Amino acid sequence: ESANEFQAQKVSLTHKLQDTEMRNQVLEAQLGDLEQRLESSQLEREAFRKSLRSLLELLDSKIFELTELRDTLAKLLEGS
Amino acid sequence: ESANEFQAQKVSLTHKLQDTEMRNQVLEAQLGDLEQRLESSQLEREAFRKSLRSLLELLDSKIFELTELRDTLAKLLEGS
Amino acid sequence: ESANEFQAQKVSLTHKLQDTEMRNQVLEAQLGDLEQRLESSQLEREAFRKSLRSLLELLDSKIFELTELRDTLAKLLEGS
Amino acid sequence: ESANEFQAQKVSLTHKLQDTEMRNQVLEAQLGDLEQRLESSQLEREAFRKSLRSLLELLDSKIFELTELRDTLAKLLEGS
Repeated sequence: ESANEFQAQKVSLTHKLQDTEMRNQVLEAQLGDLEQRLESSQLEREAFRKSLRSLLELLDSKIFELTELRDTLAKLLEGS
Repeated sequence: ESANEFQAQKVSLTHKLQDTEMRNQVLEAQLGDLEQRLESSQLEREAFRKSLRSLLELLDSKIFELTELRDTLAKLLEGS
Repeated sequence: ESANEFQAQKVSLTHKLQDTEMRNQVLEAQLGDLEQRLESSQLEREAFRKSLRSLLELLDSKIFELTELRDTLAKLLEGS
Repeated sequence: ESANEFQAQKVSLTHKLQDTEMRNQVLEAQLGDLEQRLESSQLEREAFRKSLRSLLELLDSKIFELTELRDTLAKLLEGS
C-alpha cells in the first residue's frame, strides 16, 4: 500500500474511534442518569412503604380501640 | 247501750267502711296503673336491648372487615 | 230491730272494716314497693343511657381518627 | 513517516477501536437491563398503587358503615 492509502485509513480509523468514544460518553451519561433515577425511585419507594407501615400500626390501634368499645357495649348489655 | 247509741255506731261504722272501700279502689287503680307502666317500661327496655344487640353484631362484622382490610395491607407491604 | 240484732250488725261491720283496712295496708305496701322498683329501674336506665352516650362519643372519635387515617392514605397515593 | 510507522499506528488504532466498541456493547447491555428494571419497577408500583386505591375505597365504605351504625345508636338514644 502507498503512504497515501495508509494516511487515509489512519484518518478514517481516528474518526471512527472518536465517534465511538463520543457514543460511549453518551451511554455512560445515560447509564448514570438511569442509575440515579432507579436509586431515587427506590428511596421514594422505601419512604412510601415506611409511611404505609405507620398507617398499618395506626389502623391496628384503631381496630384495637373499636374492639375495646365493642367489649364495653357487650358488658353493658350482659350486666343489666 | 240504748238502741239509739247502737244506731249511731252502726251509721259511723258504715261510713268508715265506705271511706275505706273507696280508698281501696283508688289504691287498686294506682297499683294497676303502675303495674302497666312497669310492664311497658320492661317491654321498651327489651326492645331497646334487642336493637343494641343488633348494633353489637353489626359492630362485630365491621371490626372483622377492618381486620381483613388491615391484613390485606400487611400482605401488600410484605409481598413487595 | 232488737238490741241483739244491732249488736250482731255492729260486730259484722267492725270485722268488715278491719278486713278492708288490712287490705288497704297490703295495697299501700305493694304500691310503695312498685314505686321503688319503678324509680330504681329509671335510675338504672339513666345510668345505662349515660354509659351509651359515652360509647357514642368514643365511637365518634374513632370514626374521626379512621377518617384522618383514610385522608393520610389518600394523600400518600396522590402525592407520589 | 515510514510505512512501518503507519502500519503500527493503524494496528494500535484498530485495537483501541475494538476495545471502545466492546465497551459500547457492554454499556448498551447495562442500559437495556436498567431500562427493563426501571420499567418493571414502575409496573409493580402501578399495581401496588392500584391495590392501595382499592383498599382506600374499602376503607371509605367501612367508615361510611360505621357512621351509619353510629347514627342508629344516636337515634336509639334520642328516641327513648
